[in-house]
Amino acid sequence: MKTVVSLQEMQNSALRWRREGKRIGLVPTMGSLHEGHLSLITRCREQVDIVVVSVFVNPIQFGPQEDFASYPRDLERDATLAEKAGADYIFAPSDQEMYPPDFVSLVKVEKLTERLCGASRPGHFQGVTTVVAKLFNLVQPDVAVFGAKDYQQAAVIRRMVRDLAFPVEIVVAPIVREVNGLAKSSRNQYLSREERAEALILYQSLRFAESLIRGGERQAADIKASMTEMIDSVERSRIDYIEIVHPESLEPVEVITGDVVIALAVFIGKTRLIDNLLVHVAPSS
Amino acid sequence: MKTVVSLQEMQNSALRWRREGKRIGLVPTMGSLHEGHLSLITRCREQVDIVVVSVFVNPIQFGPQEDFASYPRDLERDATLAEKAGADYIFAPSDQEMYPPDFVSLVKVEKLTERLCGASRPGHFQGVTTVVAKLFNLVQPDVAVFGAKDYQQAAVIRRMVRDLAFPVEIVVAPIVREVNGLAKSSRNQYLSREERAEALILYQSLRFAESLIRGGERQAADIKASMTEMIDSVERSRIDYIEIVHPESLEPVEVITGDVVIALAVFIGKTRLIDNLLVHVAPSS
Repeated sequence: MKTVVSLQEMQNSALRWRREGKRIGLVPTMGSLHEGHLSLITRCREQVDIVVVSVFVNPIQFGPQEDFASYPRDLERDATLAEKAGADYIFAPSDQEMYPPDFVSLVKVEKLTERLCGASRPGHFQGVTTVVAKLFNLVQPDVAVFGAKDYQQAAVIRRMVRDLAFPVEIVVAPIVREVNGLAKSSRNQYLSREERAEALILYQSLRFAESLIRGGERQAADIKASMTEMIDSVERSRIDYIEIVHPESLEPVEVITGDVVIALAVFIGKTRLIDNLLVHVAPSS
Repeated sequence: MKTVVSLQEMQNSALRWRREGKRIGLVPTMGSLHEGHLSLITRCREQVDIVVVSVFVNPIQFGPQEDFASYPRDLERDATLAEKAGADYIFAPSDQEMYPPDFVSLVKVEKLTERLCGASRPGHFQGVTTVVAKLFNLVQPDVAVFGAKDYQQAAVIRRMVRDLAFPVEIVVAPIVREVNGLAKSSRNQYLSREERAEALILYQSLRFAESLIRGGERQAADIKASMTEMIDSVERSRIDYIEIVHPESLEPVEVITGDVVIALAVFIGKTRLIDNLLVHVAPSS
């Protein structure tokens, strides 16, 4: 496996692979790889000839009060893990080359980014779509694999790709969880032992909501109220949002008449965690 | 020559050409082709294997009070002219396919778009960069040729390409003028005979400004004052802007110490015309 740092070298290689008829896959990450990321790499490996894992802690998707400076970084460890999972290249560009001082361009997806994490993290998705568009241009992937934990991110990227006609197939791979249900996340590292136990409430509340829907509940407000009560009972929890939305438009649903995504963001202590669950509901029910 | 309307067909062809190692050139136009456009096609022809001329009157780059509805359209004539100039394909997508009802993405270049035409036409350049990014993704060009008449547009596109790493070489071809100096423009069709004569003032004022600089004048304000006086003497003229700017940053220059672009937009009757002149000034002078 090889690590590429230079933008020009990455793009030249990618354009050459395309000319050679090779299929290219991209797994965009911010490093600090966990089993969730590794499942994306494995999934990508099955579909393409060359797997590129980008490792870039993207400054423009962090808010001024967020954890850009403290976000965990360990490129050597990431490279070892990525290689084991099947990566051929690590692309680890510098902040300076990705964003020179007179960088003034951006890619933005409107509407879909106004709710959920977009409401709590203004500018976040604009940072994500800008860097992903740039990574697509640099790596020229036929396939790019994203994780379902960032459900809104995957929906936003899909829409960007469709609207702007990027020739990239977007694959969204399922959330990888601990045995106890906690969704794998680089930010789980921030949690103390007690907080880690408390963080289980995210998934537990999602499964509880699912069971309510299975039991016939169709009022989103009632389901959210039950989830809120459940999460509020945990000492160090603070709800950022709980939403029940349409799987594609991400518009909030009031009365459930088809598939929905239940998505939430909850602070456990100082750490903001997200999780979501797609619940299939037969339209006739 | 072939006309392609479908986005999918255009992109599939382009990706195939890339795999076959063919170099692709794109000349993006809004149709109503004149000798200016034809010079871009000729220039493109010299550099690539396959020349695609896009003909698309892009709704999102027009303001609500502008001439989107009345903009001249004649695809058959455009196709004939483009073929003679060396085009292999006309790409003429529909508004509906380019912008489906739930289209919500955009590409934006900040700073460079705040002045000149960007100040008079809010949203214009965002419309331009969005459609050009989409055309790049659909046509996969190695080279794209733009006209120097839209000086700011070319600078904005160059910056977008650099910032977002599109693998496209941007070529800017010189302005084509009538014998009398009037810059070729699709909007010249709007001019009456009298207005056509009056429109010569744009280029005349640019050449006058150049002569002032050659004569040693270095104060931008004084040059702009002389140009204003000259243009105001024409009955049906109304100045939108006159600016003397740095050729790359497009920042206004107060004292001329190197190359500058003099750019202006002037209404002649109801028709808004633009023109510009790059003036080389030795840094030591």
